[in-house]
Amino acid sequence: MDKQQMTDIIVTTKAERGLTWEKMGEDLGMSPVWLASACLGMNGAPPEKAMAITEYLGLDQDVAKALEAFPTKVWDQTVPTDPLIYRFYEIAGVYGPTLKEVIQEKFGDGIMSAIDFTMEVDKQEDPKGDRVVVTMNGKFLPYKHW
Amino acid sequence: MDKQQMTDIIVTTKAERGLTWEKMGEDLGMSPVWLASACLGMNGAPPEKAMAITEYLGLDQDVAKALEAFPTKVWDQTVPTDPLIYRFYEIAGVYGPTLKEVIQEKFGDGIMSAIDFTMEVDKQEDPKGDRVVVTMNGKFLPYKHW
Amino acid sequence: MDKQQMTDIIVTTKAERGLTWEKMGEDLGMSPVWLASACLGMNGAPPEKAMAITEYLGLDQDVAKALEAFPTKVWDQTVPTDPLIYRFYEIAGVYGPTLKEVIQEKFGDGIMSAIDFTMEVDKQEDPKGDRVVVTMNGKFLPYKHW
Amino acid sequence: MDKQQMTDIIVTTKAERGLTWEKMGEDLGMSPVWLASACLGMNGAPPEKAMAITEYLGLDQDVAKALEAFPTKVWDQTVPTDPLIYRFYEIAGVYGPTLKEVIQEKFGDGIMSAIDFTMEVDKQEDPKGDRVVVTMNGKFLPYKHW
Amino acid sequence: MDKQQMTDIIVTTKAERGLTWEKMGEDLGMSPVWLASACLGMNGAPPEKAMAITEYLGLDQDVAKALEAFPTKVWDQTVPTDPLIYRFYEIAGVYGPTLKEVIQEKFGDGIMSAIDFTMEVDKQEDPKGDRVVVTMNGKFLPYKHW
Amino acid sequence: MDKQQMTDIIVTTKAERGLTWEKMGEDLGMSPVWLASACLGMNGAPPEKAMAITEYLGLDQDVAKALEAFPTKVWDQTVPTDPLIYRFYEIAGVYGPTLKEVIQEKFGDGIMSAIDFTMEVDKQEDPKGDRVVVTMNGKFLPYKHW
Amino acid sequence: MDKQQMTDIIVTTKAERGLTWEKMGEDLGMSPVWLASACLGMNGAPPEKAMAITEYLGLDQDVAKALEAFPTKVWDQTVPTDPLIYRFYEIAGVYGPTLKEVIQEKFGDGIMSAIDFTMEVDKQEDPKGDRVVVTMNGKFLPYKHW
Amino acid sequence: MDKQQMTDIIVTTKAERGLTWEKMGEDLGMSPVWLASACLGMNGAPPEKAMAITEYLGLDQDVAKALEAFPTKVWDQTVPTDPLIYRFYEIAGVYGPTLKEVIQEKFGDGIMSAIDFTMEVDKQEDPKGDRVVVTMNGKFLPYKHW
Amino acid sequence: MDKQQMTDIIVTTKAERGLTWEKMGEDLGMSPVWLASACLGMNGAPPEKAMAITEYLGLDQDVAKALEAFPTKVWDQTVPTDPLIYRFYEIAGVYGPTLKEVIQEKFGDGIMSAIDFTMEVDKQEDPKGDRVVVTMNGKFLPYKHW
Amino acid sequence: MDKQQMTDIIVTTKAERGLTWEKMGEDLGMSPVWLASACLGMNGAPPEKAMAITEYLGLDQDVAKALEAFPTKVWDQTVPTDPLIYRFYEIAGVYGPTLKEVIQEKFGDGIMSAIDFTMEVDKQEDPKGDRVVVTMNGKFLPYKHW
Repeated sequence: MDKQQMTDIIVTTKAERGLTWEKMGEDLGMSPVWLASACLGMNGAPPEKAMAITEYLGLDQDVAKALEAFPTKVWDQTVPTDPLIYRFYEIAGVYGPTLKEVIQEKFGDGIMSAIDFTMEVDKQEDPKGDRVVVTMNGKFLPYKHW
Repeated sequence: MDKQQMTDIIVTTKAERGLTWEKMGEDLGMSPVWLASACLGMNGAPPEKAMAITEYLGLDQDVAKALEAFPTKVWDQTVPTDPLIYRFYEIAGVYGPTLKEVIQEKFGDGIMSAIDFTMEVDKQEDPKGDRVVVTMNGKFLPYKHW
Repeated sequence: MDKQQMTDIIVTTKAERGLTWEKMGEDLGMSPVWLASACLGMNGAPPEKAMAITEYLGLDQDVAKALEAFPTKVWDQTVPTDPLIYRFYEIAGVYGPTLKEVIQEKFGDGIMSAIDFTMEVDKQEDPKGDRVVVTMNGKFLPYKHW
Repeated sequence: MDKQQMTDIIVTTKAERGLTWEKMGEDLGMSPVWLASACLGMNGAPPEKAMAITEYLGLDQDVAKALEAFPTKVWDQTVPTDPLIYRFYEIAGVYGPTLKEVIQEKFGDGIMSAIDFTMEVDKQEDPKGDRVVVTMNGKFLPYKHW
Repeated sequence: MDKQQMTDIIVTTKAERGLTWEKMGEDLGMSPVWLASACLGMNGAPPEKAMAITEYLGLDQDVAKALEAFPTKVWDQTVPTDPLIYRFYEIAGVYGPTLKEVIQEKFGDGIMSAIDFTMEVDKQEDPKGDRVVVTMNGKFLPYKHW
Repeated sequence: MDKQQMTDIIVTTKAERGLTWEKMGEDLGMSPVWLASACLGMNGAPPEKAMAITEYLGLDQDVAKALEAFPTKVWDQTVPTDPLIYRFYEIAGVYGPTLKEVIQEKFGDGIMSAIDFTMEVDKQEDPKGDRVVVTMNGKFLPYKHW
Repeated sequence: MDKQQMTDIIVTTKAERGLTWEKMGEDLGMSPVWLASACLGMNGAPPEKAMAITEYLGLDQDVAKALEAFPTKVWDQTVPTDPLIYRFYEIAGVYGPTLKEVIQEKFGDGIMSAIDFTMEVDKQEDPKGDRVVVTMNGKFLPYKHW
Repeated sequence: MDKQQMTDIIVTTKAERGLTWEKMGEDLGMSPVWLASACLGMNGAPPEKAMAITEYLGLDQDVAKALEAFPTKVWDQTVPTDPLIYRFYEIAGVYGPTLKEVIQEKFGDGIMSAIDFTMEVDKQEDPKGDRVVVTMNGKFLPYKHW
Repeated sequence: MDKQQMTDIIVTTKAERGLTWEKMGEDLGMSPVWLASACLGMNGAPPEKAMAITEYLGLDQDVAKALEAFPTKVWDQTVPTDPLIYRFYEIAGVYGPTLKEVIQEKFGDGIMSAIDFTMEVDKQEDPKGDRVVVTMNGKFLPYKHW
Repeated sequence: MDKQQMTDIIVTTKAERGLTWEKMGEDLGMSPVWLASACLGMNGAPPEKAMAITEYLGLDQDVAKALEAFPTKVWDQTVPTDPLIYRFYEIAGVYGPTLKEVIQEKFGDGIMSAIDFTMEVDKQEDPKGDRVVVTMNGKFLPYKHW
């Protein structure tokens, strides 16, 4: 079973049971963002989490094995077209040099890791229109000199 | 005076005075992220803010006018090469479909605005290595049907 | 049932019944443009509209569910080749800076939303050759400063 | 004098006099959109209009000659990055197939001309946020068979 | 039946009967170039021509319907690789600015339509090697000012 | 003197004298298309033609030398954006496979040369709108087998 | 039978019989390079050669017909990745301007045809490592002036 | 002095003296192809050859130093547009898989080096049109297994 | 059996037996890196190694034949997206000019072969986090002059 | 002084003094690879190292400041063309999936850091041709789950 088949089964089961990533994350004690990324095949799950997810959904071992597999992370569109995803590309373009200035001012020469990294999505209610709050948290890695 | 010349003057002055975006933002009552993006030419400043920034730095009217100008936001690299900026591109690639799933589950069909949008960068101290915390806050815009 | 299968069924049924988007839109009280975009899988339909469309066409629940699904908007051609679609790309290229000048002069620094957005297509009869009139209507979103 | 120099002079003069495209168009009896596109160098002006524009702004013959010149229309970014312009690219991507369906249903097999073409931009006031209204008007050109 | 299936059937039937586009065009009173483009799926045929073609080849109604359908004109290669087709791309590159100069000198600011357009291919016998003569005939469309 | 400088001088002189490519070609006994391509730097001129052109325009030896130089033919835009030139790209895309079918049916397996090649542009007057007639004439080159 | 199926059958048969292009070319009186290119589907074979090849390999008429078909020459990778093929791309890049200088010095303004063209590959034994010798032979085509 | 300046001086001097690469190569005992590539800046010359070239042309030490410098080999066009150079790109595309088949059949799994590599260009006179003969000679490098 | 099928069988068998490339390499006396690359289809195996691998895994002749086949090395992503692989692309970008400087200083004008090449991956234990050590070893190839 | 000017000064001084990166690294107690990358502007130097380098070369404070500046790492060529650099791109393409397999087998799901990273280049003498040995050493970063 490859990651694509795994995702199809999980997404179908989730829909049939009327579950949300939010609810699943809460019940399983996992972040909904990480959980979704693992179920969409963009992160590998450690064995005990893979087991917990499949037991929760009533799915069998094959799915757990597929969840555990280390994914090859591939995306086809150099510039993403879906408007929701494009906006994050736009933020990287518009604010990239700003992020570089501000992060390196605070931390020195280096980067924010996208591997030793977590992310959360929250809803901030607002009478003028609710707001999406995305919080990214990555380890700072300084460049070496040697 | 165009945006590039404006940025050169501001960045030079800032360096000569040993200022940081953090310190400037605090003194001026502006977010360091927004302030940096305006000074780098990727956001226009409302007149009173443009005035405050140039007075603070002892720069003249031309710079304020350039800060006010509505920028044309251009980036040359479809895929950014600087490692710090690339990591944000990588996050958009790896986590794009996850963000779509989780945001649309919470808010319905629509997007997070990158225009009605604010962002902050914080440092989270950690004995295993400090962490960069980037918080994005954008208005949710639902798709229309008509 | 995915969006592609949904589109195939709807388009086939529409052709068999000799319907047009115009006629369908009129009978259903929906804009023909929005209706076509939803049936082509590029917009999600709210449940009551999805139901109305499928009942009108005598199609079953699966199609309604597929109409409701939030689409991932993907197009394959960075530069579209079909001459009708290319002309809109050409307009964005030739008139993009003009639209920026004129819109930002009228509204200030910001953009026209493509999400909080509607569009209509009309025919203007003309003895020298009929004319296509496309009316786009998008909410103005001002940039924030913070 | 090339188109770039012409644009620089016109834009500077316009700013010094505190003019807008709206005001200039009204005074000169020209559409502000067409006027801006000619002054930005993306359309050529017929001699009498070139003369009228330069007399209005108090500019000399060279500028009129440059306005008359037939432009070579070039844009550098296959996918535009400025958010305002990108949204029109996004509309061409998301709604391209829909426009094809609806236009060809109304007019037969053919295209909307981007040459025999006019465009207007209007502001529609709205308590929930003003709206940008862009009206495109292009001659329908049917494909030949021979 | 889609355009691809239609093309397969027509091309196979044509080969079995030992026909050429030349011969078919002559018998049917159609240009061989247009006829080939319609049968290859890059032009739609008006009903009476679709009928004439299918009757001539002894094919049934489905094929006629497919010939009538308005095609979405798609090509995959931004730069064509087949040497015969590439040479036309090369001509557009090498002679593009020349065509612009000469056409606009003769006609004013505007373009040659590729929609209101016909094309013929002839053989010019020559003892030093026969020559291909391609004649393109497109309506001149002047740019509007408004 | 390089080709760009040569073109600037020739084009300026031509404009000052109110000449056209048509008139120049007639007076010099050269095709206006070839003449324009040589003056724009996309074809080299044999010495006697280079001399004739410069004498006609009253230009000196340097220009003749530059006209003689064998050009390196470069174009920057993989897909041309100017609408007049794009239409020829579109023709290559839409009609490429058709040209392949019809040419190879008439001549066998091979190509139309773009080197042993001439081209003319004519105006065909038409009450419904004048028409541009472009005639390409290239030697047929059959593929070898060995 | 299309060219791909034809290639699969020929390559399989060749492998089963332990043949080489060298041996086949020698037995059939054809160049191994041309023979391989025809069998890989990148050149069409004249009927008598197509017949000779299929008889030699004991294959039937369909394969001969497929060998005769005029190929559409397509390659997918703008920059080839296979190291052997990339080296020829690298040679075109590194030595392209040199080839232009040297060929045009020897022959005048024009090109080496890749159509009226033959190529051979030889092995030159060398104690320091054998060497590949590729000999390309193309007709010189001078540019026309008209 | 950088490579570009070096090339400009050498090419100018060569033209003033009415020299050819052929003649220079003969006089200097170097291949005209290698000599041209070194003078165009795409190969570095060993000190004694750099000295010989500059003495022959009466140029000073700086030019010799520039000839010696190890070049960074850069070309801007992924697909070359000049017709002479494009034909070599076309050969790599059309005959790439054939070259792979034939070379690897003769030599085993490996490549022809483009570094341990020489090339000659010859003219083969032919009453039907002279022919360009390009001979490439590269060391065969077998893949390692370890 | 093609390389893809071969890889699927080998990877499945390896997983079922709980083997690692490390263990297999040790048992077979082959480098784990080379072994993995051959089994992934990016290197051909000499017959005795192909035999040893398949016997070790209990696979049949077809797999050995597929291992022996000379691979066409193809990768689809011009810029790789998987974060582990991207980092090597980033190293080539960031350190490419540095590697050129340092290697050519040590060896003269030439390159490191990627064909006459071996590579090893080691683990260096470190209390602050283990380190990956990749050792590349390629023959230096000097440029020729001729 | 920007990084480019800094590099020009350092490289010129280094050449005038007949220094090598090797010698400089040895004298300064720095890795020649890191030293070259800092002097080429692709790494920032800590103040004491910047000071040591400039004192060693007899350069002034501006150069030291430029060495300290945090670089924006930019490369223009998506696929590098210089043969020495291309070979590293080729290694990333050919061996990328192999490196992923072997590294993740040894370390678990994660990547080798290109930031917490060092690299050395050595010469391995060999009678059959000296060999380049490149040793990369990067911290392993495991993916988080949260």
